[in-house]
Amino acid sequence: MRKKRLCMVGAGRVGRLHTRNITERVGHRAEVAAIVDPDRRTAEELAGDYDVSVVCSSLDEALEGGDFDGVVITTPTFTHHPLAVRALDAGLHVHLEKPMAMNLRECAEIKASAERAGAALQVGFMRRFDHDFIQAAELLRGGAIGAPVIIKSLTHGPGLPPPWANDIRTSNGMLAEVNSHDLDTVGWFADSAPVDIHVRVANFKGAARGVSTEHFYDTMLATIAFESGALASIAGVCPADYGYDARVEVTCTGGMVQVGEAGPAGLVSISAGEARRCAPVFASWRDRFAEAYVREMAEFVAATDGAPVRVGAEDGTRAVALVLAGTLSMLEERTVSLTEVTSPAFVPSWQAAARSEA
Amino acid sequence: MRKKRLCMVGAGRVGRLHTRNITERVGHRAEVAAIVDPDRRTAEELAGDYDVSVVCSSLDEALEGGDFDGVVITTPTFTHHPLAVRALDAGLHVHLEKPMAMNLRECAEIKASAERAGAALQVGFMRRFDHDFIQAAELLRGGAIGAPVIIKSLTHGPGLPPPWANDIRTSNGMLAEVNSHDLDTVGWFADSAPVDIHVRVANFKGAARGVSTEHFYDTMLATIAFESGALASIAGVCPADYGYDARVEVTCTGGMVQVGEAGPAGLVSISAGEARRCAPVFASWRDRFAEAYVREMAEFVAATDGAPVRVGAEDGTRAVALVLAGTLSMLEERTVSLTEVTSPAFVPSWQAAARSEA
Amino acid sequence: MRKKRLCMVGAGRVGRLHTRNITERVGHRAEVAAIVDPDRRTAEELAGDYDVSVVCSSLDEALEGGDFDGVVITTPTFTHHPLAVRALDAGLHVHLEKPMAMNLRECAEIKASAERAGAALQVGFMRRFDHDFIQAAELLRGGAIGAPVIIKSLTHGPGLPPPWANDIRTSNGMLAEVNSHDLDTVGWFADSAPVDIHVRVANFKGAARGVSTEHFYDTMLATIAFESGALASIAGVCPADYGYDARVEVTCTGGMVQVGEAGPAGLVSISAGEARRCAPVFASWRDRFAEAYVREMAEFVAATDGAPVRVGAEDGTRAVALVLAGTLSMLEERTVSLTEVTSPAFVPSWQAAARSEA
Amino acid sequence: MRKKRLCMVGAGRVGRLHTRNITERVGHRAEVAAIVDPDRRTAEELAGDYDVSVVCSSLDEALEGGDFDGVVITTPTFTHHPLAVRALDAGLHVHLEKPMAMNLRECAEIKASAERAGAALQVGFMRRFDHDFIQAAELLRGGAIGAPVIIKSLTHGPGLPPPWANDIRTSNGMLAEVNSHDLDTVGWFADSAPVDIHVRVANFKGAARGVSTEHFYDTMLATIAFESGALASIAGVCPADYGYDARVEVTCTGGMVQVGEAGPAGLVSISAGEARRCAPVFASWRDRFAEAYVREMAEFVAATDGAPVRVGAEDGTRAVALVLAGTLSMLEERTVSLTEVTSPAFVPSWQAAARSEA
Repeated sequence: MRKKRLCMVGAGRVGRLHTRNITERVGHRAEVAAIVDPDRRTAEELAGDYDVSVVCSSLDEALEGGDFDGVVITTPTFTHHPLAVRALDAGLHVHLEKPMAMNLRECAEIKASAERAGAALQVGFMRRFDHDFIQAAELLRGGAIGAPVIIKSLTHGPGLPPPWANDIRTSNGMLAEVNSHDLDTVGWFADSAPVDIHVRVANFKGAARGVSTEHFYDTMLATIAFESGALASIAGVCPADYGYDARVEVTCTGGMVQVGEAGPAGLVSISAGEARRCAPVFASWRDRFAEAYVREMAEFVAATDGAPVRVGAEDGTRAVALVLAGTLSMLEERTVSLTEVTSPAFVPSWQAAARSEA
Repeated sequence: MRKKRLCMVGAGRVGRLHTRNITERVGHRAEVAAIVDPDRRTAEELAGDYDVSVVCSSLDEALEGGDFDGVVITTPTFTHHPLAVRALDAGLHVHLEKPMAMNLRECAEIKASAERAGAALQVGFMRRFDHDFIQAAELLRGGAIGAPVIIKSLTHGPGLPPPWANDIRTSNGMLAEVNSHDLDTVGWFADSAPVDIHVRVANFKGAARGVSTEHFYDTMLATIAFESGALASIAGVCPADYGYDARVEVTCTGGMVQVGEAGPAGLVSISAGEARRCAPVFASWRDRFAEAYVREMAEFVAATDGAPVRVGAEDGTRAVALVLAGTLSMLEERTVSLTEVTSPAFVPSWQAAARSEA
Repeated sequence: MRKKRLCMVGAGRVGRLHTRNITERVGHRAEVAAIVDPDRRTAEELAGDYDVSVVCSSLDEALEGGDFDGVVITTPTFTHHPLAVRALDAGLHVHLEKPMAMNLRECAEIKASAERAGAALQVGFMRRFDHDFIQAAELLRGGAIGAPVIIKSLTHGPGLPPPWANDIRTSNGMLAEVNSHDLDTVGWFADSAPVDIHVRVANFKGAARGVSTEHFYDTMLATIAFESGALASIAGVCPADYGYDARVEVTCTGGMVQVGEAGPAGLVSISAGEARRCAPVFASWRDRFAEAYVREMAEFVAATDGAPVRVGAEDGTRAVALVLAGTLSMLEERTVSLTEVTSPAFVPSWQAAARSEA
Repeated sequence: MRKKRLCMVGAGRVGRLHTRNITERVGHRAEVAAIVDPDRRTAEELAGDYDVSVVCSSLDEALEGGDFDGVVITTPTFTHHPLAVRALDAGLHVHLEKPMAMNLRECAEIKASAERAGAALQVGFMRRFDHDFIQAAELLRGGAIGAPVIIKSLTHGPGLPPPWANDIRTSNGMLAEVNSHDLDTVGWFADSAPVDIHVRVANFKGAARGVSTEHFYDTMLATIAFESGALASIAGVCPADYGYDARVEVTCTGGMVQVGEAGPAGLVSISAGEARRCAPVFASWRDRFAEAYVREMAEFVAATDGAPVRVGAEDGTRAVALVLAGTLSMLEERTVSLTEVTSPAFVPSWQAAARSEA
């Protein structure tokens, strides 16, 4: 069986993680055949580490020179739309990191490109590939504990994201960059369409860490109502400093389920000097979701062979709609209906690009 | 040392619990000297079980006939105000179950009576007397993990409360009867004044259980913002069916703390047929807070001797203000500022009594 | 109902704990009417703290002067036999701390005294009164997880016991003073008679803590075989320094059960500086078994009124037999059959008293 | 970098697991180039599943026809010695499953072959490659919690092993096949040489499952003393039926550490009908040590390139010595010193092969 040839776009932290996993953990079925990054030095360093022979400065350059089965896009959010459309229009399968895009127009165009090309589009919500999250979803679908009534999901990230990711003009901010995962999870678990969202934010650490970006926040609490009547609460804290924390708890009409822990469970120690039982915490999303990221790439490779995609344009678009409605809720201090942002007339006025286009 | 003589008003579940604890667990320092309940049979049954010689149909009757140090009021919320004022005006110390009263006028009058009499007023937020909650509060006050940024508190009760407690006209409903504890806890842990509240509710089980009361809900999610910038999320589910669940998690600028578990920890078993590790859950608030209730009565007895009160009129009033603002938020589907309900002009129009007065 | 009058013999740590519990937690049904201790100052201090009016230097003095329903004996092991026999012969009910006595002759004489007097004899294995241990015993008896095959029990005590308790001449040493609880538990859970025992010991901390007693050990591992075929493993470490740790795990033919945790479960915190999840440990047996000690005294008071005793002479004697066989195993470095030490000819030659008698 | 070519000897459960891991998880650096099994159909089925082109009935046949870097031996214990010696004498690196061999003569000859060839010999104690076990070993070596005093290790396997593995004549029985892991772990954690061992066994399920082999046991408790003074307790139960359970607890002079849980921690659910919190258990060693097995193969591949071996002949030999001394202890019902079985004159008389040789 010929190995699938993948083009890795973006040589940052996520690009490096996917490159390693494809090479070392899915290496019998796929290889990273090219690495694309406008920062050539970073791209070359990554290529060197994993014996990737081709390095390009742009996706165009890579597509001209090479023959690929799929493209893995791990660049900043504001670049997702042009890169994904370019790859899909070239007939290539695409794994696209979360959040899917900046707004719903971009989402719709990416989706249309995928449909035209008949290509697979997988969106990078790695929780969907985590064993415990999958088990929980099956438990919820199975009905043994009834229907969800309250879904609580949290993502606390350890450190300050890069400037573009903190700025709602370039990325829709923390709600998009950190809590997209929660927005996806609560919809997945609710198995129902979101109706409206209410968002409150706070800024505790920005000043001390030199962030003066307008509308910056490091603390967020969202409430989402679903058509089923279920309610969701999403908490975001970033930087949280104490570790990477991603947990979900679902209260149902006939029971409850908790997914995730703040750290691995298999090592507990007591030091006589402290007289406390202590266990490690997850330092990073790379630790917490190590196996989920591997499975994500393995399934993407399978998707380039026609296997169904676990999470695609529809889910990605729903999360972006919630990001937009949630950001509007924060800015206007009111509950925002999803229909407001899904209206063709809606323009996310806080986005630099949207403003220049409008 | 002469034993303190307490008058127990209300012979229902809470009255029975306090009577047992006073008799069996604080019996060296206090005794239940009279039991008051308009339902004489219930009062007599309780009196018989704990060798209480005096049974009365009303507090007036008891106060005329007896000599007491303190009164424990465990009757429905709409009766708190007249009973507490009556006892305090008689110069007696009062333990008053939560919620303190129906509205802020009642709270103010109770507080004024206590101050005039120089009597202790303890409000029945039993979480304040729980060892783990106290330790968490000390940890938060101590600063070792920084300042709170998000406080999440939940109370899920096993079964349907009595009709009066489900009806916002007679009790302000679940937010008051079930989640008063959370409203108190988040203020206690935040150590800051609440600014506004946003409440969403749902009704999943009412119809099936024959509850047709207007505005009935069994599922509630509230967001509260504090002056400090901290945000709180409160979840209420009742009936939850799976057990009594009361837990709090506080994310801070420098760490986090979790208080409570869904059940006791010391017994885990695996049956080969199931291949699952299982542990018990708390069936009732009586199990979860067994020792907190004892401590609550022990401290009330101490308060009749002049010891300071752990939780009193100020905290009780703050929780009622949040109940009122939260109920208004639910009814009007908007965020409600605390200043709205603390305004002298405010009337909780949904309350039968308030409406008749207005 | 007249309160039961109890005579507390021994004003040390255990005597103080029982006095507090009887006074504050069983005070509606019983009172400590006298405190006996040859160290009058200690006795008077305890009596002062709990308003006990009578203080005596000896049990004889107390029995002459007072009228009691029961006697609680909390003195060093080598005094158990004369005190228990004296109290029982006076027709009084007795709660006797563990270990029951120094040897089987003493056990037999105590048992005979109790039977002659028709008095209740309760032995102070507080684990028998712990909610989780009781639940585990019921689970095991119920058969849902089959029959026990391996029972592991551990007791790790925080600090060095007093000299008499470390010396096998005056107390049979750690196996008796610390691990009597485990010896009782494994027999209770096995529901079968012990056949033989094999003991290994080590001494890690003695020298550094100034203990030069012959045969001193601070680390112990015992294996016991039961008639049912079940095996038990008992671990003892004292001083353990890190806290008080008492846990049991029972592997059965159809599952398993774990009893106890190293600390309470309801408070977990993470400090950003440490990046570890930490929870408290039990500092002392007084913390871990706080409620079990209360129940123990409540049941003893009930026993003075004719209620059945949960754990008595038979169980106490079985544990002493295991202490003797285990000590012999340690000294002679071989597996010792229980029949060796239950033989009338057997003399525990290491005991000062036994040697002088022989 | 040329991929390492590995020859897989044995196409059973372990051979299949290693083949999958080498192919799918270490596929960028190695491949299974041949599968050897006297049962050709099994070998061919495995080869087909992972695209291995060469299938042989014997190692000789494979070595004649192919060119390999290393050999992975996963056959029954009684075949380890000839196969390992054959591969090492051919100059190939060897991963050899536990237990290393049947007796110390075989161990010595394997070790000598490895030394002559200058080839790597890795022994399949997968716990050595588990993240939590490694962290615990580092904690113990680091000294932060003092020196080990009691080490408790258990392995409970779900189902009945194959007949040869239950028969002490062909495999040294459960102590070797199931508890070799514990024998290795306690030595690793103690960081000290074992002095003697005492073993007790029981047979609860043999008859019901049709096992009539002499000396069969399904329940085992061993005590080992180390030169350092530390004591170890090892428990074995197989079949345990309730899952695969492998946990270790080390009490130290200044604290303690627990490694492992009965199941993964990240999914807890409560069903209202049961009112119990439940979590999954590990069904198999394949689940519990999934990542350790991958790391084991990755390190073996690295060893074929000269990287140091984590666990080799010395550790493998120590475990076999403990197996022999432990089996002798069981048969002769006494504590057995390690020097007895390491004496050149010692013959494990219960082994069929040993008897025929003697």
